[in-house]
Amino acid sequence: MLLCIPTHAAAEDGYQLWLRYQPLPAAQRAHVPDSILVLGADSPTKGAARSELQRALQGMLGKAPGIVDKARLDTIVLARGADLPAGLDTASAVRDELKKLGDEGYLVRRAKLNGVAVTLVAANTDAGLLYGSFAWLRELQLPSGKGADRIALASSPTLPLRVLNHWDNLDRSVERGYAGESIWNWWELPHIIDPRYTDYARANASLGINGTVLNNVNSKAEVLGAPFIAKAAAIADVLRPYGIRVYLSVRWSTPLEMKQTKTADPLDPEVAAWWKNKADEIYRTIPDFGGFLVKANSEGQPGPQDYRRNHADGANMLARAVAPHKGIVMWRAFVYASPEESKAGKAHDRAVEGYDQFIPLDGKFDDNVLVQVKNGAIDFQPREPAHPMFGAMPKTPLIMEFQITKEYLGFATHLAYLGPMFQETLEFDTRIGGRKLTVADTIQGKQGRVGGIAGVANIGSSRSWSGSIFDQSNWYMYGRMAWDQGLDSRVIAREWAAQTFSPDARLLDPVVNMMMRSREAVVDYMTPLGLNHVMGSSHHHGPAPWVDNLERADWNPIYYHRAGRDGIGFDRTAKGSNAVAQYSPEVARRFADPKTTPPELLLWFHRLPWDYRMASGRTLWEELVTRYDHGVAEAAAMQAEWQRMKPFVDAQRFADTAQRLAQQHVEAQWWRDASLAYFQDVSGLPLPAGVRKPAQSLDHYKSIRFPYAPGI
Amino acid sequence: MLLCIPTHAAAEDGYQLWLRYQPLPAAQRAHVPDSILVLGADSPTKGAARSELQRALQGMLGKAPGIVDKARLDTIVLARGADLPAGLDTASAVRDELKKLGDEGYLVRRAKLNGVAVTLVAANTDAGLLYGSFAWLRELQLPSGKGADRIALASSPTLPLRVLNHWDNLDRSVERGYAGESIWNWWELPHIIDPRYTDYARANASLGINGTVLNNVNSKAEVLGAPFIAKAAAIADVLRPYGIRVYLSVRWSTPLEMKQTKTADPLDPEVAAWWKNKADEIYRTIPDFGGFLVKANSEGQPGPQDYRRNHADGANMLARAVAPHKGIVMWRAFVYASPEESKAGKAHDRAVEGYDQFIPLDGKFDDNVLVQVKNGAIDFQPREPAHPMFGAMPKTPLIMEFQITKEYLGFATHLAYLGPMFQETLEFDTRIGGRKLTVADTIQGKQGRVGGIAGVANIGSSRSWSGSIFDQSNWYMYGRMAWDQGLDSRVIAREWAAQTFSPDARLLDPVVNMMMRSREAVVDYMTPLGLNHVMGSSHHHGPAPWVDNLERADWNPIYYHRAGRDGIGFDRTAKGSNAVAQYSPEVARRFADPKTTPPELLLWFHRLPWDYRMASGRTLWEELVTRYDHGVAEAAAMQAEWQRMKPFVDAQRFADTAQRLAQQHVEAQWWRDASLAYFQDVSGLPLPAGVRKPAQSLDHYKSIRFPYAPGI
Repeated sequence: MLLCIPTHAAAEDGYQLWLRYQPLPAAQRAHVPDSILVLGADSPTKGAARSELQRALQGMLGKAPGIVDKARLDTIVLARGADLPAGLDTASAVRDELKKLGDEGYLVRRAKLNGVAVTLVAANTDAGLLYGSFAWLRELQLPSGKGADRIALASSPTLPLRVLNHWDNLDRSVERGYAGESIWNWWELPHIIDPRYTDYARANASLGINGTVLNNVNSKAEVLGAPFIAKAAAIADVLRPYGIRVYLSVRWSTPLEMKQTKTADPLDPEVAAWWKNKADEIYRTIPDFGGFLVKANSEGQPGPQDYRRNHADGANMLARAVAPHKGIVMWRAFVYASPEESKAGKAHDRAVEGYDQFIPLDGKFDDNVLVQVKNGAIDFQPREPAHPMFGAMPKTPLIMEFQITKEYLGFATHLAYLGPMFQETLEFDTRIGGRKLTVADTIQGKQGRVGGIAGVANIGSSRSWSGSIFDQSNWYMYGRMAWDQGLDSRVIAREWAAQTFSPDARLLDPVVNMMMRSREAVVDYMTPLGLNHVMGSSHHHGPAPWVDNLERADWNPIYYHRAGRDGIGFDRTAKGSNAVAQYSPEVARRFADPKTTPPELLLWFHRLPWDYRMASGRTLWEELVTRYDHGVAEAAAMQAEWQRMKPFVDAQRFADTAQRLAQQHVEAQWWRDASLAYFQDVSGLPLPAGVRKPAQSLDHYKSIRFPYAPGI
Repeated sequence: MLLCIPTHAAAEDGYQLWLRYQPLPAAQRAHVPDSILVLGADSPTKGAARSELQRALQGMLGKAPGIVDKARLDTIVLARGADLPAGLDTASAVRDELKKLGDEGYLVRRAKLNGVAVTLVAANTDAGLLYGSFAWLRELQLPSGKGADRIALASSPTLPLRVLNHWDNLDRSVERGYAGESIWNWWELPHIIDPRYTDYARANASLGINGTVLNNVNSKAEVLGAPFIAKAAAIADVLRPYGIRVYLSVRWSTPLEMKQTKTADPLDPEVAAWWKNKADEIYRTIPDFGGFLVKANSEGQPGPQDYRRNHADGANMLARAVAPHKGIVMWRAFVYASPEESKAGKAHDRAVEGYDQFIPLDGKFDDNVLVQVKNGAIDFQPREPAHPMFGAMPKTPLIMEFQITKEYLGFATHLAYLGPMFQETLEFDTRIGGRKLTVADTIQGKQGRVGGIAGVANIGSSRSWSGSIFDQSNWYMYGRMAWDQGLDSRVIAREWAAQTFSPDARLLDPVVNMMMRSREAVVDYMTPLGLNHVMGSSHHHGPAPWVDNLERADWNPIYYHRAGRDGIGFDRTAKGSNAVAQYSPEVARRFADPKTTPPELLLWFHRLPWDYRMASGRTLWEELVTRYDHGVAEAAAMQAEWQRMKPFVDAQRFADTAQRLAQQHVEAQWWRDASLAYFQDVSGLPLPAGVRKPAQSLDHYKSIRFPYAPGI
């Protein structure tokens, strides 16, 4: 009775994520251990690993595994290097291998312990043992089907900082969140601990994510009040065994707003002392507190420039407050000109401003400051070229900031697997120094100091965590790429789909193909050929390329596409804003010429006449129309393909996904129709022969309003 | 495999509510049917009944029941009166009984069908069959343990309108909601249907709730736009098979705000025509739409008085728009004086104003208008006397509006079972006409027209629906009392606890006792002896009897308790506001004299000196202190009692409840300490000997702020 619950009790609502541990087919059960041996002194982290193994083996074998103190045949044995037992045949080889694996790496090897064949998970730390356990469980569930006795793994992360950024507000709303409220129930914390916090920790640990910024970068002074620190500490207590440190986003003007200082000038000793005391206070309740994330002098947030100090002055002051505790400061580089500056600029281009402000500061930051760079230079658009700051600050460790939540890619409605997008950026070859130097290389220390990676979370209180089942794949993919920037996005998609749905090839192949095509589909029906920032104002839902009346010029879609009778696109060559000059000479040359610019970035770098002839032989206008239509066709194809998956997916997750894909198709058509209606209007061009007319008038598309859209 | 899921997949998080259908002990399985026979033409409602029986019997017996077309031994047979089969031995008796049971009643009888003993569920409608099925399932799970072959039930509801009021906003926040966001995912509706909507329908149908107002009484014009109507229609489609109609809260000024009329004057023909067209539009997509709920000229909401029309003018205009479709209008009577009026009043008393405005309108409302009266006259306080409007409008059907969500009783943190509170109000004897006439009688048509009952829902997107496990009991209790106002709150508590936890007496007796004492505990530590409205401003969290600076005098706690050196309380006798005169002469006499006023209402009706001698022999001041201390002791006792329940409750629900009870105890002490610190300060009185001093200074309690409290 205890082990068997009626089916209705466990509808497949996605809550289990990729940690479903479904029963293994009989043929795959050979050598899957039915016992667990954890060596050395016990610890909360070892407890977490053991309990995950218990849960997983129970699920996969249908029977609770034994916790043993002596290895049996096939026992899974967890041991730190220092705790490797005397009777292990490969002990000295394992110790050698561990030397290369650092603090978080792990090793999984088949070995003999006192003559009995076992599976060994070894690491230098408890966290490594936890990661190794998860890696081994993942491998067991993959269709590669090596057989449990043939799994051999060795891995360690490239980056020490693999962080989620929650844009979660204190009222539990989530900026750009499409999955319900914040999972952090601030009101009930610290008194009431939602068991979900533990499942959150499990999911992240399964990927190797080792840090989480609990609150929105648009922060509030109350975050550093005693009541909130106690709430953060309660979360930290839950996450600690899973190797996850807690960080806070802080508001620059906190001490001033709390009326505890008379200024927020970073060079004022009273201000520095306040932050030092505050850091001490935090570390008293959260001894392994990670540090601060700061959005300063950006989009209206206060910052050191309010006192004529620069970003380094600000970051260093905070860095010195947390340094005695080994804390860090993650300082965001997402800044653009103030309204006054933007008016003064001759060929104003928001894309160049982060680079211009930060590059001169290279070398001026304290050792425990990392500069966090949003990709791309505009704002997480469906496609942007890699940010030119990567590689341009060799003396400063940089953090790559990706957005996992789909602010610009269809919220939680559209299926868009972001793996190819993140991979495209990480693999981008900067050619700095005239040789291959990818963006990934620039944060991995190959050019200087080791950086980190941050993902703006798509996690909320919705039962499926991410608002839809397929959005879970973006969390998964982010975590896997954070661990290893060399992983292929298709491999990750396969891993995810096999664990989330089934390793059955009849599902796996089509689903992975669908995922791999999905982001390009979104680019095509939203922002083809390098267009960007043409979405609805404020909520960012749906098409609105016509918007021209926002407070700042560089918030308006028309600023970005610059479409008129004579052409379309933003000239970022030397004749325009010269943004190309921020790249290495080799890359700059390529982007400076429309003929050598990849078509998918064409209108990002160039303003071209409508009749510009593309490599395809089509005019630019014809190509644009073709891309929009292709995007819609892809949305339709995904909808149809998913219908064929019905036999292989449980009813609830099938239906939920089917409904979203149907709506995605509708919205893809809307994007295409509204965009073409508008571009036809400004260009005065007829649609190419045979092309379907927009379903409604341009005025109709302009009139649509979404007063209660989520995530604002 | 399909029927057996690993335990971890189904943590007891409260999602299943009281519909858990746990395995029956072997001794109770005799005559529990393993087959289901549904007679007559199939329908969605019959399908809902069948599927609930399947789910429940699967859970209770561990085996899927058969769906049969011929009765076997013990088969559960569902049949409308018209479909009773020829071979039924008791057919004519059943037909006779059904005549008394109306449209929604049901009958459960043991009978013989073609010589085979079966359990018959009979009703006049499909909804009756559904209610009967749920009632039979409930009975099976109760500790009374009659044996499945001895269950005999016959019941029909007293009130035709048993409605939930969701105070859910279009941005998915919930006014006075402490259980997460709205369960209605407005953004994703109507394209994506959350399976939770079906579970919501099941839970309500299990109680007999037959209507739901989807959105907040503080409504918005957008509610009547086409996009929102489509969303409401999608919900209506899910709820319809469960016998639940959908209603909308509408904003009086909608046509004006939509710029489709030039005024919102109810006597303007253009306005009336607009509402008629709008009603027609709604009924085209929701053919069984229930009607409108209106909060007009109340707390800043627009209404007919803006045009010098009265509430009847407003309600009747709307009523005529929905009348052709058999819709109704529920017009709220929660009104109080405008700021100007309140300044002018001599002995201003907010408690008298609803009565004063509405009683003169008795007889002026159209047949399909019901006036909805909030209990009590102030605002859902932990204790208020029954609202004097009940019984005072014999020509008008009244709806009793209870608040299920605990705006004033500790949110979702405090355990407070509201059964005794609702029962106290429904059983209050108005003595109108000089004879027994309870509040329940006045809405049941015993004095005039049949009314209804409404409960402000405590339902949200939190996994436990209501924010805590014990808060589910208030939803349950409301539904059961809505069906039958004569049900005893203790009986309902037992039903709920048996289904929610276990019928084991070792759990049931202590838990029911705890529930029954819980509301009085809250009254004692928050608002003893008839005090009221002394909570924190705006969020209504915690004590704030000192507040004296709000925009309106009658929003301030000091307005309600009137404490000073010389005494405490609100004089509502003839020497004061004379609110007592709104009750029948017999009741008014009783409340006019402190000696005959029940002590729990003493300071509601009287202002008395601190040394006033209570029946207990204590002074009023000593009595107040005693009550506060008793409330805190009760909170401590509940906390301790729950610890003893550990062996009988699953780990997750045990821990969640234990954490809440611990925090309730802390907050009870805070209420007591802050209140006593304040009343000591204003009275200048020392604490009686042996009484513990408040833990902190009054200034400390005054300084506490809750900037991000939920539910505002």
